[in-house]
Amino acid sequence: MSATAAAGYEPTGRTVPTRSADRASYDRETIHAILDADYVCHLGFVRDGAPVVLPTLYGRVGETLYLHGSTGSRPLRAAGQEDPGLPVCVTVTHVDGLVLARSAFHHSINYRSVVVHGIARRVTDEAERRAALDALVDHVVPGRAADSRPADAKELAATAVLRVDLAEVSAKIRTGGPNDEPEDLALPHWSGVLPVARSYGAPVPADDLAPGIPVPGYLTAR
Amino acid sequence: MSATAAAGYEPTGRTVPTRSADRASYDRETIHAILDADYVCHLGFVRDGAPVVLPTLYGRVGETLYLHGSTGSRPLRAAGQEDPGLPVCVTVTHVDGLVLARSAFHHSINYRSVVVHGIARRVTDEAERRAALDALVDHVVPGRAADSRPADAKELAATAVLRVDLAEVSAKIRTGGPNDEPEDLALPHWSGVLPVARSYGAPVPADDLAPGIPVPGYLTAR
Repeated sequence: MSATAAAGYEPTGRTVPTRSADRASYDRETIHAILDADYVCHLGFVRDGAPVVLPTLYGRVGETLYLHGSTGSRPLRAAGQEDPGLPVCVTVTHVDGLVLARSAFHHSINYRSVVVHGIARRVTDEAERRAALDALVDHVVPGRAADSRPADAKELAATAVLRVDLAEVSAKIRTGGPNDEPEDLALPHWSGVLPVARSYGAPVPADDLAPGIPVPGYLTAR
Repeated sequence: MSATAAAGYEPTGRTVPTRSADRASYDRETIHAILDADYVCHLGFVRDGAPVVLPTLYGRVGETLYLHGSTGSRPLRAAGQEDPGLPVCVTVTHVDGLVLARSAFHHSINYRSVVVHGIARRVTDEAERRAALDALVDHVVPGRAADSRPADAKELAATAVLRVDLAEVSAKIRTGGPNDEPEDLALPHWSGVLPVARSYGAPVPADDLAPGIPVPGYLTAR
């Protein structure tokens, strides 16, 4: 593996955008950071020739994304237990700002997104399945897997785990202010960015939570 | 159209979920509200037999979703100018909470999502194109279309507008606390919901914004 390949993913025909190529990135660290900053992806697959896009949780371990679901769910059934697996596209998007230009045309969004093309395959190795499920929980709330009851045999049997290798991957990132045309700069419209972020409220205890159990530190840190 | 059909979308084979059917909704008002509360969707389509999922902006006018992009972009080119159009799946997801159960298995997410199956067709009527572009801007920032320079002929020519009719549509919604097993209630793990929301920061003016242009009311309201 060359130094370039180690630092980034190899671009392919479908990861090189036709538009705004300057916003594309194949940098491994950048892509991992975008993936690690969210936990809900949009999973695309093809069913009866038509596209299907469903939101679902994911976790990352090194160069592998893990997804999970009921063994009865459609994509999980489609992925089967064996090769060739299910062709998927996994997309993660953070919205960072609304970009208001003087012209309607130059309105935009600041965002960071990652698109993963690959084959989803069922994980059958029990140790990998357990590690993947821990990663899924910890991806949403770091530290939580160790502070919950692990899945028992029946729950494990009901849960399918898919893996998608991070190989054909790209990020697309827009930052900064509006790109207005020079002749529009004198127009009387306000122009700039409205920052957008995900925020967390105060933890709401379950109705049946026993008294005396404090809110864990991994939640208050958020 | 029956009273039922008027109040909701007709379920189809692909909009009836195989799992958690109690979370599904076909109610028109519910679905419109979910669509109107966001502006970034994940657009899925099939290219060379494989799924592609890209984030993109959308707007809604009645029973039509509008998407737009450069005339050079892949999905816009694929949708062509004529029938049969491009089969797409448009998915919108709000994350409302992280649900922490005592058991790893029962961890979940509170969310509201809408999945639209349909055919994306290029809009060629100029009046509809203009109205759609206004709707796209106003969907992100209500009131903004009227407070910006409209697209000129060159910009209009560079912009493709797609329409997807809202016909085969469903929502999926999870609310409430964790659903722990009765035998897990005495475990010492904190259990409950961490609320999640999208939040907006203070507007950041463009570097080249002329002095004296106030932040518009439609932004400060946010």
